[in-house]
Amino acid sequence: MQVRIVEVGPRDGLQNEKAIIPTVEKINFINRLSETGLRNIEASSFVNPKWIPQLADADEVLNGIQRNPAVSYSALVPNVRGLARAKAANLQEIAVFMSASETHNLKNINKTIEDTFPVLAEVVKNASADGIRVRGYVSTVFGCPYEGEVSIENSLRVTDALLEMGVYEVSIGDTIGVATPRQVHDVFSQLIWSFGSARLAAHFHDTRGTGLANVVAALAEGIRIFDSSLGGLGGCPYAPGAAGNISTEELVYLLEGMGYETGVDLDKLIAAGAFIQEQLGRQLPSKVLQAKLSASSCPT
Amino acid sequence: MQVRIVEVGPRDGLQNEKAIIPTVEKINFINRLSETGLRNIEASSFVNPKWIPQLADADEVLNGIQRNPAVSYSALVPNVRGLARAKAANLQEIAVFMSASETHNLKNINKTIEDTFPVLAEVVKNASADGIRVRGYVSTVFGCPYEGEVSIENSLRVTDALLEMGVYEVSIGDTIGVATPRQVHDVFSQLIWSFGSARLAAHFHDTRGTGLANVVAALAEGIRIFDSSLGGLGGCPYAPGAAGNISTEELVYLLEGMGYETGVDLDKLIAAGAFIQEQLGRQLPSKVLQAKLSASSCPT
Repeated sequence: MQVRIVEVGPRDGLQNEKAIIPTVEKINFINRLSETGLRNIEASSFVNPKWIPQLADADEVLNGIQRNPAVSYSALVPNVRGLARAKAANLQEIAVFMSASETHNLKNINKTIEDTFPVLAEVVKNASADGIRVRGYVSTVFGCPYEGEVSIENSLRVTDALLEMGVYEVSIGDTIGVATPRQVHDVFSQLIWSFGSARLAAHFHDTRGTGLANVVAALAEGIRIFDSSLGGLGGCPYAPGAAGNISTEELVYLLEGMGYETGVDLDKLIAAGAFIQEQLGRQLPSKVLQAKLSASSCPT
Repeated sequence: MQVRIVEVGPRDGLQNEKAIIPTVEKINFINRLSETGLRNIEASSFVNPKWIPQLADADEVLNGIQRNPAVSYSALVPNVRGLARAKAANLQEIAVFMSASETHNLKNINKTIEDTFPVLAEVVKNASADGIRVRGYVSTVFGCPYEGEVSIENSLRVTDALLEMGVYEVSIGDTIGVATPRQVHDVFSQLIWSFGSARLAAHFHDTRGTGLANVVAALAEGIRIFDSSLGGLGGCPYAPGAAGNISTEELVYLLEGMGYETGVDLDKLIAAGAFIQEQLGRQLPSKVLQAKLSASSCPT
């Protein structure tokens, strides 16, 4: 029983941290992640550095990391300009993104949902022509910081459009970490009814502590791909001080405990977590990380 | 669909905090908890103050709090000496405790499991004769800091003995926070097969972040009583720096989101959490607390 984990710490995590990590340490960090058994690492973002200064060094980072052939490295790409940088960095995989909520899409990308489709379709077409795989992200599926509730019809429509464009997988996001298991059941059962489960991933934020509970609910629906950030790196841009992504170590602990194979070495994750925690100068939220780093007398 | 929450922050939480809260602030804290809708509050412990200096003021605290008639206040009682103090404090409810693991029981209470039974039986008999309700705790059901794995037979035996003595409810504890949902399913399904679900509660620690995921698994088995600590107060005595109880705010958020009625006012919980956090001088792990206290722009 296998589960695939997509590590988004270097992107979703670092883009939501106050501290800016030096390029050489980002490279160091990703190199460590590359040795943990993780098979997917989202290493940076080609969004305009004006918006995401933390990741302004995307080109140097991607050129500087030691690429493990068993790992697929990816970066966020907002448009064809970003795609050109991704190609220059020799990436075999990229990710495009948009929202299920009209207001969030407008605020985040400055376009309506309808106007975003052709922009992403062009990226997907162009990338695919060069043999580059494209993943799709749908934000605010479970709730929007501006609109509150988001209808499932929006998420179905956006997911459908992304799959039609040719993305190989769609990551369904709880951007503000409001979801609870019943909603996860409702949303994923409908998405799976429409699209099957093989091409869907769950991207949970732990902003209200429900992240792993939601993973359990998604597993029950058949979802077998989960996004997470090492150490629980990151935060919520809409609630400064609040938590962001679920933590990779906690996810691995949960999944392995439940009998799923992740292929990931928890000890190596802990070492990478200790490293980035020191770089950031703040204690990361991952409870597994803190438990393992404590002077623990437990045999487990 | 109702779930009862047993607030153990003033006892399990505070006994595992480094900082010692002044008596007057403990009273202040419990008074705030009494106004949140919580119906069960474990307010202190009559364990020898030599072992638990944080709660040496149990007598003054219990005499000082303003008791809400809708709340059942309780305290931990290790033996008949502690019971005498509980009676002097006019408590209508107490809790006795022991472990499923022989080694943990020895280290914690200085007795074998077999030798503990008559001690607790005497407390239960004596208390019941005075109309005082007794709750039972079983520690280390899901794992022991000394022995590692603990057999389910031990937990069945100890739970059976407690119920036979006359406790009205047994709280099944993941003392070191190692459990994952499949194990929760296995353990509770066997306990419920033997004893039914009405007299069982789940006491999860969040030491590895799996607390709420385990709550979901226990709910699926029919468990409807959960212990938690406000703010995620406390820690793990076997892993200093690691997390302790699941947080009451996160538990309420999860349960209410799933459609269960807790009767608890989340805003009042947050206010109490902010108060105790300030008293302790450290940021508490509850993500709901941090999200609510942040300058959040989210409508939820």
